[in-house]
Amino acid sequence: MLSTRFTRRFDLKYPIALAPMDPASGGRLAAAVSNAGALGLLGGGYGSHETLQKEFDLAGDAAIGCGFITWSMGKDVSLLEKAIERRPRALMLSFSDPEPFARKITDAGIPLICQVQTLDHVQRAVDCGATAIVAQGTEAGGHGFDRQTTMTFTPEVADYLAATSPATLLLSAGGIADGRGLAAALMLGADGVLMGTRFWATQEALIHQKAKDLVVRAKGGQTVRTSVFDIARGRQWPEEYTGRLMVNDFIRKWHGREDALKAVWREEKVRVESAYESGDYDCANVTVGQAIGLVADLPPAASVVQRVAGQAERLLHSRNVASLLEGPVTERSMGAALTS
Amino acid sequence: MLSTRFTRRFDLKYPIALAPMDPASGGRLAAAVSNAGALGLLGGGYGSHETLQKEFDLAGDAAIGCGFITWSMGKDVSLLEKAIERRPRALMLSFSDPEPFARKITDAGIPLICQVQTLDHVQRAVDCGATAIVAQGTEAGGHGFDRQTTMTFTPEVADYLAATSPATLLLSAGGIADGRGLAAALMLGADGVLMGTRFWATQEALIHQKAKDLVVRAKGGQTVRTSVFDIARGRQWPEEYTGRLMVNDFIRKWHGREDALKAVWREEKVRVESAYESGDYDCANVTVGQAIGLVADLPPAASVVQRVAGQAERLLHSRNVASLLEGPVTERSMGAALTS
Repeated sequence: MLSTRFTRRFDLKYPIALAPMDPASGGRLAAAVSNAGALGLLGGGYGSHETLQKEFDLAGDAAIGCGFITWSMGKDVSLLEKAIERRPRALMLSFSDPEPFARKITDAGIPLICQVQTLDHVQRAVDCGATAIVAQGTEAGGHGFDRQTTMTFTPEVADYLAATSPATLLLSAGGIADGRGLAAALMLGADGVLMGTRFWATQEALIHQKAKDLVVRAKGGQTVRTSVFDIARGRQWPEEYTGRLMVNDFIRKWHGREDALKAVWREEKVRVESAYESGDYDCANVTVGQAIGLVADLPPAASVVQRVAGQAERLLHSRNVASLLEGPVTERSMGAALTS
Repeated sequence: MLSTRFTRRFDLKYPIALAPMDPASGGRLAAAVSNAGALGLLGGGYGSHETLQKEFDLAGDAAIGCGFITWSMGKDVSLLEKAIERRPRALMLSFSDPEPFARKITDAGIPLICQVQTLDHVQRAVDCGATAIVAQGTEAGGHGFDRQTTMTFTPEVADYLAATSPATLLLSAGGIADGRGLAAALMLGADGVLMGTRFWATQEALIHQKAKDLVVRAKGGQTVRTSVFDIARGRQWPEEYTGRLMVNDFIRKWHGREDALKAVWREEKVRVESAYESGDYDCANVTVGQAIGLVADLPPAASVVQRVAGQAERLLHSRNVASLLEGPVTERSMGAALTS
């Protein structure tokens, strides 16, 4: 047990949430995370009725929530309405203004979670009645801003909320993959964490085995923020959003040559989508963050929850944490021992 | 007291080091930090005999160390020799290969500290006999890489050292400005922290008052990594190093137009250097990191040391840290209360 305001508000055993990754966070993964005592969030992603229904069904009666890419879901609000009908544990909106959709969620009595990248976003989320805010640092995988890292953004948002909306919960996201990261986030002022990359590398994640194997072997320095896959896939992301991905041949070819890519994007789209199906990750995107350097295996999601929470508890509940740091070095790197 | 392997090895009260910032970290600032129980490091910077002598003299008999921009100091190794003659508490090498200079330092019995940006740098520093490694995240002010943030790089380096060189100390740098950051860094596996931006905004820092005032008012999202001032000043930084600075008119004008700047850099150099003297920070550079969003005052450096350490102790030494998180929100944001 690691009790925070977040665990109490959402009736969780652990202050951990699954990032609603598209497509990794399917119903099985979300259910596994929720059943392990954390908050599983289904990845509603760009929005497809067929996928949403199928994955909600796969989650069975697990108490999961769901998250959307806001600007994309906004093209068909009936997606949100269908999600609300499922009575999810929470609905999360990420990327672009939540305001046009927030009332539907809060009026239904469902807790609203908003992912943010700037202090202006924080204020907007508060104004929309968000129960919890996810402060996303630039080390996070997938889409986000390149403005601030978790180390500075979490405490800055904590200060902002303390001064303006103290009841709003704060989750920290970006670069957190083990109990050290969870403990650090709590020290920085968060009520909990949202993890993507670590859950991406689990048995239940809806990702090709070849991509998972790549991530297990990778170091944290092998990712980059880029727009090349958004261009190739014809996705009109709002300004300033880029995607953090593992560097591969496709990125090496096109990153920095975006104008040239725009001229041939339809052909490249076919190539990328076919590569995605076949598991050719020299071409297709591997959507993970800098935390890949902390990921060394592909366990079931429930094991991840237990390990991360257990390690954080050991770090935090010690009567004198500094005494741990004084022990043999293997104690200092307890994290490594427990996570790999 | 917050005892770690770093405090014991360097006979410190607190596991905190001053970044050897050029020109902010002069003799008075370094001495104030050392006299407060942390490790003050004089900013040897690009290297000037006159400045080095003057600032070492200003530090009096305080037990300070000194740090250099390695590739620049390497143009006149007698700078390093002069520093060694002062019997500094430590010598720190940052930016480019430390190997050509390491032996001079270690043979003199002076602890070598190496700042690193990648795991390859870590191995090189270990091979050079570094006593401590400073793992620098991209949120740090001044020069560095844009590869990894403190949240992922610190634990990844901790794991690497635990497996390959467990006696080597690890300091975390980038984005740390209060006790929350120090506590978080210790949770991530560091033996201590190196702080720049927070000490930059102190009374003793050798920085124009107008620049300090700007930083106190700034938010963490107002910095960027860029090369425009290196171009304008004709400084030949090695590949991949950029500088994190507060965004200003000069950066807005030239960032992304580096080739155009290269054509007129000599004129711009005059303009920038004159602006620096006059305190015109629309033009001159303000060399600070994302931690500016956590800085709200300009105290004496000794107060910073005491506050940061005191806040971290409260967070870490609590018998049950989670119980703090359960308290009123003002407790959660204790950091804010103590630092501002």
